Amino acid sequence: MTQSATKTIRPLGDRIVVKPIEREEVTKSGIVLPDTAKEKPQMGVVLAVGPGKILENGQRQPMDVQVGQTVLFAKYAGTEFELDGEDVLILRESDVMGILGE
Amino acid sequence: MTQSATKTIRPLGDRIVVKPIEREEVTKSGIVLPDTAKEKPQMGVVLAVGPGKILENGQRQPMDVQVGQTVLFAKYAGTEFELDGEDVLILRESDVMGILGE
Amino acid sequence: MTQSATKTIRPLGDRIVVKPIEREEVTKSGIVLPDTAKEKPQMGVVLAVGPGKILENGQRQPMDVQVGQTVLFAKYAGTEFELDGEDVLILRESDVMGILGE
Amino acid sequence: MTQSATKTIRPLGDRIVVKPIEREEVTKSGIVLPDTAKEKPQMGVVLAVGPGKILENGQRQPMDVQVGQTVLFAKYAGTEFELDGEDVLILRESDVMGILGE
Amino acid sequence: MTQSATKTIRPLGDRIVVKPIEREEVTKSGIVLPDTAKEKPQMGVVLAVGPGKILENGQRQPMDVQVGQTVLFAKYAGTEFELDGEDVLILRESDVMGILGE
Amino acid sequence: MTQSATKTIRPLGDRIVVKPIEREEVTKSGIVLPDTAKEKPQMGVVLAVGPGKILENGQRQPMDVQVGQTVLFAKYAGTEFELDGEDVLILRESDVMGILGE
Amino acid sequence: MTQSATKTIRPLGDRIVVKPIEREEVTKSGIVLPDTAKEKPQMGVVLAVGPGKILENGQRQPMDVQVGQTVLFAKYAGTEFELDGEDVLILRESDVMGILGE
Repeated sequence: MTQSATKTIRPLGDRIVVKPIEREEVTKSGIVLPDTAKEKPQMGVVLAVGPGKILENGQRQPMDVQVGQTVLFAKYAGTEFELDGEDVLILRESDVMGILGE
Repeated sequence: MTQSATKTIRPLGDRIVVKPIEREEVTKSGIVLPDTAKEKPQMGVVLAVGPGKILENGQRQPMDVQVGQTVLFAKYAGTEFELDGEDVLILRESDVMGILGE
Repeated sequence: MTQSATKTIRPLGDRIVVKPIEREEVTKSGIVLPDTAKEKPQMGVVLAVGPGKILENGQRQPMDVQVGQTVLFAKYAGTEFELDGEDVLILRESDVMGILGE
Repeated sequence: MTQSATKTIRPLGDRIVVKPIEREEVTKSGIVLPDTAKEKPQMGVVLAVGPGKILENGQRQPMDVQVGQTVLFAKYAGTEFELDGEDVLILRESDVMGILGE
Repeated sequence: MTQSATKTIRPLGDRIVVKPIEREEVTKSGIVLPDTAKEKPQMGVVLAVGPGKILENGQRQPMDVQVGQTVLFAKYAGTEFELDGEDVLILRESDVMGILGE
Repeated sequence: MTQSATKTIRPLGDRIVVKPIEREEVTKSGIVLPDTAKEKPQMGVVLAVGPGKILENGQRQPMDVQVGQTVLFAKYAGTEFELDGEDVLILRESDVMGILGE
Repeated sequence: MTQSATKTIRPLGDRIVVKPIEREEVTKSGIVLPDTAKEKPQMGVVLAVGPGKILENGQRQPMDVQVGQTVLFAKYAGTEFELDGEDVLILRESDVMGILGE
């Protein structure tokens, strides 16, 4: 699939494209997502960011999330698809709970 | 049906007319839509675009999607009908998750 | 019922009066509404158009649909009644997905 | 009940008081309300009209309906009560689909 | 309970305090609330009126209802309590359908 | 628990802290909350008041309720907790139906 | 996990990161959360605070909660995860009922 390596998604509105980070990697990174009754979040790296949603006053709200950041989002948020052989997700920025830093 | 080849739909508000791309074509294009528990998106080519929806302040919000683009949308979004012998869909732009590029 | 031929409905707000086009006529026109699991749209000719709805800022939003146009709308939208012996529907313009052209 | 003939209702907001027209009268008038699976509308004469509802910007939206007009409304809309021996309904103007003319 | 005769309720927002009028009194007054499948309204006398609700633009919307008026409201609207030995109701003005006049 | 007598809650937004008044006290005060099918209100004394909620235009809406007032609120409104050995409730001002006076 | 002690979450919008305080600690502090039928609140220390949510007029609403404060919130609010070996929660500020003081 190297010949389609240039495939990209340009998200609309306040959507972002995220490559999820597997549980094992998450554990190694020092952040553990516990197995409890509460909703479990998922982590991922931001691959693409939409232009922001339009408010009722006609303004476009700038995005807080940037390409390359690692974000935390609700486990069942978004829509999954495969892009150039990789599983990615399209989420709304409102599904992103926070940005991970060091 | 060549005599009705000029039939067109002019979508209202933020609606668009999309010709869905079949699964086989999708796979050949290097983007695979996986068979998982998550909602699966569908792809299509935009045939027509509405003028945009009216915001509560009376302004018309311009459309981000343009005719000829390939878009990704939720599988069960929109209304299906047949136009000049082809199955097409009418969607709202808000059902479009992203625009495919190369 | 020729003596009541002058009966009319003046729709309120963003409502329109539509005379539905029967399935057989639709098929003959070169547009076929397929029998699938997706919601099927219906076609009709616009007989009357309301003045438009009032936005929260007090402005009246102009109507996009005009008398005489053929429109596509969701099958179960609107309220049916009989006007001078003809079955007609009252719909909201937001139920209209698109306007048919040649 | 002639001694209470002066009883009136002043509707609040966008409400109207309507005297429903019986089915038999409706049929005689040349408009027939068919017995189908779709929601059936009802007709009535407007007896009183409220001052209009207040929009979120503080303005009062003028009413489109006037006393004496014959209106078409959803069958199960409104609240029924008896005023000076006559069954009347209080509806919101948004329940009125259209105004009947000749 | 004469020693607590001065107890009062000052309603908040768009609420009003109403003393319901019993069915028997209603019938004697020449307005009959029929026993049908439709929701039946109830009548009452307004004892107290709130200052009005705050709109999203920060303005306070003036009340249409005044102390001493007889109002018509939905039967199951509001909250019942006993004030100085009398059953009263707290309603929102939006639950009031109309003001009775002579 | 005298050593923690200085514990306080500063409510956020349009929330208030209320000390409920027991039924027995309520009855002695001359206001009786009847045992009917309708929702029964509860009374309490306001211990703390939030700064008011932010409207969509960015303004903060001033509170109508003040510390020390006796308020009437829906029985199942709010969240209960124990503060310095006393059961208190956190409510939203919109849950308060009225302020009791003499 | 000392090597990942610098891991942080930067919450988005009106979200905050909170370290919950265990029940035993709460009881020792002189505030008891009773075991009743009403929803029980939970306490926690604020570790991080988002920039505030965007209102429909495009303004960002400042946060009332600050890092280091002890807050009261609904028991089932938020999303739980583990950060550097500690269970923390991400909440919206609207889930915070009040700030504890001395």
